[in-house]
Amino acid sequence: MILRLCILVLTSLVLAGYEEVKPQPQNNYRGFDLVDKAGNIRRPADVRDHYQSLGTYVVLDPKGDQVHATYASPGTAENYRKTGKFADGTVLVKEVFGADHAQMTTGDVRWASGTKVWFVMIKDEKGRYSDNPLWGDGWGWALFKSDAPDKQVATDYKKDCLGCHIPARGTDWVYVQGYPVLAAK
Amino acid sequence: MILRLCILVLTSLVLAGYEEVKPQPQNNYRGFDLVDKAGNIRRPADVRDHYQSLGTYVVLDPKGDQVHATYASPGTAENYRKTGKFADGTVLVKEVFGADHAQMTTGDVRWASGTKVWFVMIKDEKGRYSDNPLWGDGWGWALFKSDAPDKQVATDYKKDCLGCHIPARGTDWVYVQGYPVLAAK
Repeated sequence: MILRLCILVLTSLVLAGYEEVKPQPQNNYRGFDLVDKAGNIRRPADVRDHYQSLGTYVVLDPKGDQVHATYASPGTAENYRKTGKFADGTVLVKEVFGADHAQMTTGDVRWASGTKVWFVMIKDEKGRYSDNPLWGDGWGWALFKSDAPDKQVATDYKKDCLGCHIPARGTDWVYVQGYPVLAAK
Repeated sequence: MILRLCILVLTSLVLAGYEEVKPQPQNNYRGFDLVDKAGNIRRPADVRDHYQSLGTYVVLDPKGDQVHATYASPGTAENYRKTGKFADGTVLVKEVFGADHAQMTTGDVRWASGTKVWFVMIKDEKGRYSDNPLWGDGWGWALFKSDAPDKQVATDYKKDCLGCHIPARGTDWVYVQGYPVLAAK
């Protein structure tokens, strides 16, 4: 009896083990781990190492060029290609850098140099924080500046965030045209 | 005796289980999975989804702007920050796009549009393929064009690749200044 029980438990464990060594599921949209009960948003850590890159915009400005690099929580692009949507809990982070430039072997080149701010968006299909002025139009919206990288400083997404996103309203407020990984393969 | 053996095996399995549910090791530099015995290099698939972004250069050229996005095999940046080197087996992929541009809410903007070529480098600390003209100076070098994305078309890295990399010789032939994730945190 003990032997049978052991075999049963062993079999279960071995099967559980096989589950675990499969490729890790890449669609765990953990955005709400970054949000407290009142809807306050924390900046996700280690985005450069652990999120996927969606793409980069370079803004040429005589007052100072900028590089805007957008990262998404793992699995975002695969889901978007399948469904045409950002899944509930998806986190997008746009890191805004200054830019350096030089004549290089390829030509007149710009690249990222020095983080200025991070914009964070968390997809919310359910209108979870309707009393919080940083949530609405299907997203939570947040802004962090490099001089105090953990302090969320936006107060009202309609005033602080939405203005720049209006031209992208038709694509759920996100400038998807610069993100090749979202397009069908 | 059987019971003891079972407990021992169960304990081992449970401990093994704990090993498996730890965060996955992100430093499996599998570059040589892409290389056959003669040193021929295949282009890695799904780089946009599964590699990490190192950074992006934008080349302004009256004949056609380009966006150069570089991806690295998982764990590359973490290892580089610790050791100052690219680990043996590290894969770097530079995807060269054309560029679109427009006046947007942020200013005069460029972004990636349409892949032209992929450059692939695989770190080789051991001089594995000394007879192959696509290996040398610590790397394997390869080029794939978007009209035949699986056909490696470089014939000699010294002629086809190294010229553009000479200014980056002091940083192991890689333009690290545009890759913020490689810098110390």
